[in-house]
Amino acid sequence: MSEDLFGPLFVPDGIREAVGGRAWLQAMLDAEAALAIAEARAGLIPAGDAEAIAECCDADRFDPEEIGHEGRAAGNPVPALVKALTEAVPGDAARHVHKGATSQDITDTAAMLVARRALDLILAEVDGVASACARLADAHRETIMAGRTLLQQALPTTFGLKAAGWLVAVLEARRRLLTVRESGLAAQLGGAAGTLASLGPPGIRVLQEFARELDLAEPVVPWHTARLRVAELGSVLALASGVTHKLALDVVLLAQTEVAEAAEPSEGGRGGSSTLPHKRNPVGSVLAAACAHRVPSLAETLQAAMAQEHERAAGAWHAEWETLSDALALTGGAAAAMREVMEGLEVRPDRMRENLDATGGLLLAENVTTIAAEKLGRLEAHELVEAASRRTFANESTLREELLAEPALREHLTPEEIDAALDPEHYLGSAGAFVDRALDLYGKEVPA
Amino acid sequence: MSEDLFGPLFVPDGIREAVGGRAWLQAMLDAEAALAIAEARAGLIPAGDAEAIAECCDADRFDPEEIGHEGRAAGNPVPALVKALTEAVPGDAARHVHKGATSQDITDTAAMLVARRALDLILAEVDGVASACARLADAHRETIMAGRTLLQQALPTTFGLKAAGWLVAVLEARRRLLTVRESGLAAQLGGAAGTLASLGPPGIRVLQEFARELDLAEPVVPWHTARLRVAELGSVLALASGVTHKLALDVVLLAQTEVAEAAEPSEGGRGGSSTLPHKRNPVGSVLAAACAHRVPSLAETLQAAMAQEHERAAGAWHAEWETLSDALALTGGAAAAMREVMEGLEVRPDRMRENLDATGGLLLAENVTTIAAEKLGRLEAHELVEAASRRTFANESTLREELLAEPALREHLTPEEIDAALDPEHYLGSAGAFVDRALDLYGKEVPA
Amino acid sequence: MSEDLFGPLFVPDGIREAVGGRAWLQAMLDAEAALAIAEARAGLIPAGDAEAIAECCDADRFDPEEIGHEGRAAGNPVPALVKALTEAVPGDAARHVHKGATSQDITDTAAMLVARRALDLILAEVDGVASACARLADAHRETIMAGRTLLQQALPTTFGLKAAGWLVAVLEARRRLLTVRESGLAAQLGGAAGTLASLGPPGIRVLQEFARELDLAEPVVPWHTARLRVAELGSVLALASGVTHKLALDVVLLAQTEVAEAAEPSEGGRGGSSTLPHKRNPVGSVLAAACAHRVPSLAETLQAAMAQEHERAAGAWHAEWETLSDALALTGGAAAAMREVMEGLEVRPDRMRENLDATGGLLLAENVTTIAAEKLGRLEAHELVEAASRRTFANESTLREELLAEPALREHLTPEEIDAALDPEHYLGSAGAFVDRALDLYGKEVPA
Amino acid sequence: MSEDLFGPLFVPDGIREAVGGRAWLQAMLDAEAALAIAEARAGLIPAGDAEAIAECCDADRFDPEEIGHEGRAAGNPVPALVKALTEAVPGDAARHVHKGATSQDITDTAAMLVARRALDLILAEVDGVASACARLADAHRETIMAGRTLLQQALPTTFGLKAAGWLVAVLEARRRLLTVRESGLAAQLGGAAGTLASLGPPGIRVLQEFARELDLAEPVVPWHTARLRVAELGSVLALASGVTHKLALDVVLLAQTEVAEAAEPSEGGRGGSSTLPHKRNPVGSVLAAACAHRVPSLAETLQAAMAQEHERAAGAWHAEWETLSDALALTGGAAAAMREVMEGLEVRPDRMRENLDATGGLLLAENVTTIAAEKLGRLEAHELVEAASRRTFANESTLREELLAEPALREHLTPEEIDAALDPEHYLGSAGAFVDRALDLYGKEVPA
Repeated sequence: MSEDLFGPLFVPDGIREAVGGRAWLQAMLDAEAALAIAEARAGLIPAGDAEAIAECCDADRFDPEEIGHEGRAAGNPVPALVKALTEAVPGDAARHVHKGATSQDITDTAAMLVARRALDLILAEVDGVASACARLADAHRETIMAGRTLLQQALPTTFGLKAAGWLVAVLEARRRLLTVRESGLAAQLGGAAGTLASLGPPGIRVLQEFARELDLAEPVVPWHTARLRVAELGSVLALASGVTHKLALDVVLLAQTEVAEAAEPSEGGRGGSSTLPHKRNPVGSVLAAACAHRVPSLAETLQAAMAQEHERAAGAWHAEWETLSDALALTGGAAAAMREVMEGLEVRPDRMRENLDATGGLLLAENVTTIAAEKLGRLEAHELVEAASRRTFANESTLREELLAEPALREHLTPEEIDAALDPEHYLGSAGAFVDRALDLYGKEVPA
Repeated sequence: MSEDLFGPLFVPDGIREAVGGRAWLQAMLDAEAALAIAEARAGLIPAGDAEAIAECCDADRFDPEEIGHEGRAAGNPVPALVKALTEAVPGDAARHVHKGATSQDITDTAAMLVARRALDLILAEVDGVASACARLADAHRETIMAGRTLLQQALPTTFGLKAAGWLVAVLEARRRLLTVRESGLAAQLGGAAGTLASLGPPGIRVLQEFARELDLAEPVVPWHTARLRVAELGSVLALASGVTHKLALDVVLLAQTEVAEAAEPSEGGRGGSSTLPHKRNPVGSVLAAACAHRVPSLAETLQAAMAQEHERAAGAWHAEWETLSDALALTGGAAAAMREVMEGLEVRPDRMRENLDATGGLLLAENVTTIAAEKLGRLEAHELVEAASRRTFANESTLREELLAEPALREHLTPEEIDAALDPEHYLGSAGAFVDRALDLYGKEVPA
Repeated sequence: MSEDLFGPLFVPDGIREAVGGRAWLQAMLDAEAALAIAEARAGLIPAGDAEAIAECCDADRFDPEEIGHEGRAAGNPVPALVKALTEAVPGDAARHVHKGATSQDITDTAAMLVARRALDLILAEVDGVASACARLADAHRETIMAGRTLLQQALPTTFGLKAAGWLVAVLEARRRLLTVRESGLAAQLGGAAGTLASLGPPGIRVLQEFARELDLAEPVVPWHTARLRVAELGSVLALASGVTHKLALDVVLLAQTEVAEAAEPSEGGRGGSSTLPHKRNPVGSVLAAACAHRVPSLAETLQAAMAQEHERAAGAWHAEWETLSDALALTGGAAAAMREVMEGLEVRPDRMRENLDATGGLLLAENVTTIAAEKLGRLEAHELVEAASRRTFANESTLREELLAEPALREHLTPEEIDAALDPEHYLGSAGAFVDRALDLYGKEVPA
Repeated sequence: MSEDLFGPLFVPDGIREAVGGRAWLQAMLDAEAALAIAEARAGLIPAGDAEAIAECCDADRFDPEEIGHEGRAAGNPVPALVKALTEAVPGDAARHVHKGATSQDITDTAAMLVARRALDLILAEVDGVASACARLADAHRETIMAGRTLLQQALPTTFGLKAAGWLVAVLEARRRLLTVRESGLAAQLGGAAGTLASLGPPGIRVLQEFARELDLAEPVVPWHTARLRVAELGSVLALASGVTHKLALDVVLLAQTEVAEAAEPSEGGRGGSSTLPHKRNPVGSVLAAACAHRVPSLAETLQAAMAQEHERAAGAWHAEWETLSDALALTGGAAAAMREVMEGLEVRPDRMRENLDATGGLLLAENVTTIAAEKLGRLEAHELVEAASRRTFANESTLREELLAEPALREHLTPEEIDAALDPEHYLGSAGAFVDRALDLYGKEVPA
């Protein structure tokens, strides 16, 4: 309710417009136009009247704020819009406006159209994130860094694999967004009680033409109080924003002053400070995280709102409209911010290596044990390396020094062999193969 | 994000404005003005400069949308606003704008001011609901109706007691709203890292004057990442909207065509239909329910956002602003709609009695058993009445007929005694006393 | 945390067991066994050792409560289980237990196995609900009742269409459950940092065999902190329980004393009361609603937990385990309760017709207008019928009486024509066709 | 539903027991006993019968699992428990069991008793957290470290102030827990429809004695469907767990390998690894975070469940029981884990200073500017220091070196003055004063 200030801060203008009051009005008018056209095709009203109605279905002729105010008496905006549209349509055609439809037919269909338009914009941002992640995965296939569990350094990994993990997660979200966009959006047309009674025998025909005209799925039965469609939209948006949240969190953590392995792009002074040049606030990730924080609760509202009474709900339906708009906008905001972040991400391989080396080779202890075990037996190898590890930590030395100073080990392993065992490049397992698998998936799922 | 259409449908204009972008800007400017004044009082800047700054702190001079757009680079609106304010302040005073403060000092303080202004409007609506419920409880102290458990008629009660239950619930919510308004809102001033470093020794003094100037509580320490205050606001709003939700649900259920014991006011054709004069859509309750549906999830977002990093959060803080605005607006919307509903509620005692009688006196069976037991013993009384009850249901007769036709009972009870036992007025227990207790509480808590 | 009392009240024993501690232990042991087998196939350990390990992977050998207590030191149950399993495995094979895996590999894989077993049970209940709804839709294709919007009678519809709406909603949920069961469940194997480092070159081979052995999807990369899979499970469960919630709500509303159009089955005294024979508490629907109330918030926890740090999360991952178990159990509980309700639902066509007639034919006013308009013109017809409707309501008469008493109408319409226009059977629009479409879908999607 | 495995991992046994099935049974039996005693005091039943009933009210005589199974028929456990209790009570006293009460009277009252017992245990843990934070704040009043905003080093602060911030947050949560424990818990007694009809005139007297006997607040009217009490409990638990979540997050971040300013206690090998001695997993904080992640959603379920129908809800009430139990248990789990963490927290002042110095003094640039401005004027000082800062970052030198190499500055400032300006101890503002204020509050609110 303070979107005139905070809206532009979090959400790109294009996405805001796609879910704004004007876009909703236009979508409702598109539904009214399609209804008239469908009824003309079914022989219920003259084709010329349908054309006359369709011509007036232009949101610029109506005022969202005014329609909203007037909508209060009916509990939804459609009666006020229908009244205004009827007044706008010339001649006899006016009496065919909204024929046979109920307010919810128009609002639900409009919600689907609004969702589709917003999903297209969201998908464009998500594609951008995927593309940037793919580029990072490819470019940093060999960039070694510390893998971190519970925020503790654990084993070496590559930044390529981290980016590949991001990429696959984004592709998974993308697939759900595409699926819901392609098959999850349906027209709504049932009339006052879901029977299409006032359309008479051609009712089903009108429904078919209505859905076809709008390129929406034709529902098997009216879904006025069967809200899986709307709740699923919310869920998929929560999944997509959840993925961007993970990416944002990783970037914020990598950008920490003490870690400094990555930094957000800083064009235009973004996130910067003239007095604190070391400080590069990860503003894009922060904005993405802020958006993503809010979406699961909105999805929850939509899921909880599935309990709707009989043929029209007394409140739960009405709770969907702004909730869905917000979920679409914020998912778009999160994706857009992360696209910018990933496209301009500054990666610092040197610092990654420094941080990895800062633990004195301890992350390789497991590998040294494995190699030493071939010569000394598992048990002795384990004990020797464990003791050396403890000394490394206690003496603030390196594992290499402690291993070289251990006679029992030196008997069986040359310094070269020890160096090889301590080389993180030799202990990356399937990291490279995983990167390849991710890029392969990307190539298959996202046409160049 | 579609509030230009749906905002006016759900939320009264006054409340929308109180949490809108302009109100937020004014609250931020109020914080900047108070900061300058506090610093002048602490001797840090000249009093004249403080006055010069304060004079420019007028939201009409700035554009929310523009500040929002520019705020994107910093991740919050304050730097853009400070820049614009600094440009607006004439002469040397300009360099004292925002002195020693961090963006979050201004935003958090503004959030408290916005909340206070909105809470005042919400409380006015809540008072209206309480007053209307008190009037209903008083007027219908003796109006008998069926009490319903799991939506099944169970025992007689009074509409007065139902309204008294609403009243007490509303008073409980009111008390929480008052408490959070009186003691839950605090000024925020800590500077970049919460130490007030750049203000030097007078730091605490400035904080004190700042809080005093704004009539906000003075926090013990800065609360940049200790967010109980904000989360608690959300919780209290969820509690208040939850209470209105219960009221709305009861009205919707009472207004059902088949129940018809109450109807919403219908001035101005609201909720009505010319072709279906029996149909009086409970539009106010529906709007209230729609608003109330959404608040718990918003409160949840604020609670989950309490996990904030170190001295300033990377996203969780930013997620609060619109969430809080929405929670305030929707609670206000719910309360306002229920105030209108309760003030104009049409109560139908005749229909209440009809519905109660429709079960043929079965709701009084328990009472008949108790009275008969005094003469026949508990066991026999129970068996006789149970059998009569079953016959009543099976024969679609009344319990009275079946009891009178039962010789074993007629031996001990006269028709007059049976009638007395079947009179719901004699089986209302402490309903009247409960109503009196509720009205008494109302009298104590809400000054006339 | 009080499931020893409330668990059996809400959730069938089979489903509780499928997500209980023992089932989790068995699933973790299944993962350990499959890991050993996969490593044997990849030539990393002797086949005999794998067999020896697999033989010990029996949950009955271990104590959930004890593993849980010991798991506290590591923050997850796997190290304690691996220790106990290693002690149980005889001879040299013991040192190959858990080789190359990290705790999360085992827990995540186990979560997928637990989910699969629970989904199978949930789907069986959902199939039962669908089958019962299909039967109701078919049997009541012609059973006329009032359609209700905002809980006000609006237009005639059929109980068949209502059941068809339930059926299609259930089928939609079923489809999501099937999809997530078939393709949403994947094995997890990445080792300490997701590189499979300690398995060396055969790492990917082991992953493939591991997934194959468990009949789980093979992930492109490890998904230790890419949690869409788990969150999606939660979302789909919320959608499924949301559908049961709608059904439960409708039954509760139909079962109201004043509506009485349906009643839950009452075998074994369920929901009944000997003294109040009219009272048939809709206990099954109440239990289903209670379960369904809780699932969206659990799904929300899983969605919000998608923000996981680097290669292993510090808390968000750990929040998933019980949340997922609860979401599975409660969805199962909701579906099981609604299956029982729908299988035994007592439908009362006579009462449906009575309730419809109680508004004196007003629900047909729209149809009379349409038919009269053919003779009198739209405007005059509208005015005449509207006036008659108002008189019907005011006089507590019937619309038929008022129409017959209207000379201007009688000029153009015979009593027979008026009766036909007032017959709800003639104003059901496409209700029958919609029922057929729903049953057709059911036939296609659910093999007999 | 998998608490036999995961329960002991997350929640101390004492707290688990306090909210377990047996504890619920005992609380329900306590309510039944208190009811009999109250009725005896009001003269409704013989004192001896009340004593006989009270003597049988021992949970060890009944089986939670069995009561749960039998409870399914009624939709709540009370009828089965009353049946078993009635069978257990000898002689005539048996017929006075549960006299005049409805199932919800017993369940709601029990919920309050369970909550009180759990709150006592939670408060003990919270007190422990507060005490540990107070000790840390006091001990580290002068321990300098980097303040971090958006996880970027910003300005110096003290670990004492960080701990003071934790302390005040914990005290705020403690106050809410105390308030709800002292005044938020009320007895429930209304009988079947909230009128206490079957108790006759002494109804209110029985209610008073019932509340007094249980030391619970006496409600003004029955609150069967006015659920603010229960929802508020959830809210307060969410606030308390939110505070622990913030503490846990800070510890996890401080414990990062690259930050290493604090470490969790590691007695008993907790969180440790023999091969990776640098690795000290912050297991306690991880467990706390895991618990805290889940509570807001549970609170949301309770808030959303406030919409309850008429005199008894059809599902929303039933959704409260386990949700409340879980919220209590998890808040207790979070608090207990953080108590252990804070009591044994290993703080590393040397590392804090190292990390602060790692940015070469840049965090003090603001202070240098302020001091230089007194001699050079604000503008020139700003430009000089900004340029030096940029060179520091670019050259990887220190700000001291760059400032000393700047002739224009050296003209006005001696090396000693520059050193003083760069000394973080001189730029801590009110940090110490804030610590004192926090400790002062602690002294006042928590009796030694």
